[in-house]
Amino acid sequence: MPVKSIPNIVVGRLPIYLRALQRMAQEGRRVTSSQEIGERLGISAAQIRKDLSQFGEFGKQGTGYNIEYLSDQLQTILKVDRVWEVAVIGAGDIGSALARYNGLNERGFRVRMVFDSDPEKIGKTIGDFVIRDSANLEVDLLEARVRIVIVSVPASAAQDVADSAVKAGVSAILNYAPISLNVPQDVRVQHIDPVTHLQHMTYYL
Amino acid sequence: MPVKSIPNIVVGRLPIYLRALQRMAQEGRRVTSSQEIGERLGISAAQIRKDLSQFGEFGKQGTGYNIEYLSDQLQTILKVDRVWEVAVIGAGDIGSALARYNGLNERGFRVRMVFDSDPEKIGKTIGDFVIRDSANLEVDLLEARVRIVIVSVPASAAQDVADSAVKAGVSAILNYAPISLNVPQDVRVQHIDPVTHLQHMTYYL
Repeated sequence: MPVKSIPNIVVGRLPIYLRALQRMAQEGRRVTSSQEIGERLGISAAQIRKDLSQFGEFGKQGTGYNIEYLSDQLQTILKVDRVWEVAVIGAGDIGSALARYNGLNERGFRVRMVFDSDPEKIGKTIGDFVIRDSANLEVDLLEARVRIVIVSVPASAAQDVADSAVKAGVSAILNYAPISLNVPQDVRVQHIDPVTHLQHMTYYL
Repeated sequence: MPVKSIPNIVVGRLPIYLRALQRMAQEGRRVTSSQEIGERLGISAAQIRKDLSQFGEFGKQGTGYNIEYLSDQLQTILKVDRVWEVAVIGAGDIGSALARYNGLNERGFRVRMVFDSDPEKIGKTIGDFVIRDSANLEVDLLEARVRIVIVSVPASAAQDVADSAVKAGVSAILNYAPISLNVPQDVRVQHIDPVTHLQHMTYYL
């Protein structure tokens, strides 16, 4: 486990490495190299070795990495060697898609509850979930001790929802609403907004 | 227009600034400052000034930025002062959500066509779109001169779809499949994978 502080940008690359390793394992592979991972990801082998070396020794020069061992280590480092329960707040198109998405379960996250504020939706089901009333968000999250939420409500509602989640002890928010959220320093937020990604690319077209 | 090469990470922040400015405009605001934008985004005012200064002079010390003017300038820099046509490939939950998402239209992108390979889906409609057969992907993209695609197919199909899109002249891919895509150097790819974002945050929990 790291004692020194690892740059956030390095931490952000670990899930990408883990995903590539898990894919190789699915393909029946046992050993790989920083060169091969690098080619798959479009990252230099030197960068990968440097990133991994911040967390320990995972392979030997010349023999490469054992895929299963390195995956296990990365899962431990990222704390996804356990299952995290997640609440989805906002049962629109994106929230519903996420509530049904098996890819979460397979990679360390389990949707525990889904919320919406629309009386037409509350009580209806998405997959295995009965949609809960957002009015009870704070109490329900507290009671279930959920620490991670996915926010998929309209931009106008996102900050209020985030505030309630933080009050309930949530410390990580994956935000799909196209607005930046203000949260206390000890709460993590990651944003997913397809338009900002598209606009980033059109700059180069 | 930039003559020197701007770091990619700086380009990536411009859509975030633009989004904040457009939100302020919606709120009826006319003038802002790097301090205020910074507070909204959790980025230092100095960073914002430095980023913007790479592209020109957009405000005066003491009087701040005119929101409409700066938005227009950023839209021009990011080339979203026009409307880009986009194809959505994969009409599953995420692809369908994106095909219906008004937020694209409002911010420079218009879905032009939607594809799937499932015979059960081909010919059915999502909103205004009749789902097309992925078998015709290359021809249809070429004919429509679509340069941007959103890939929302399973991981196992994503590379093939990307290869076809590139052959059809696509130069920007927003990839929702949880796999890294290999594309020629002149093609841009951005990845959206909620799990990598979640795993990035659990590191800190």
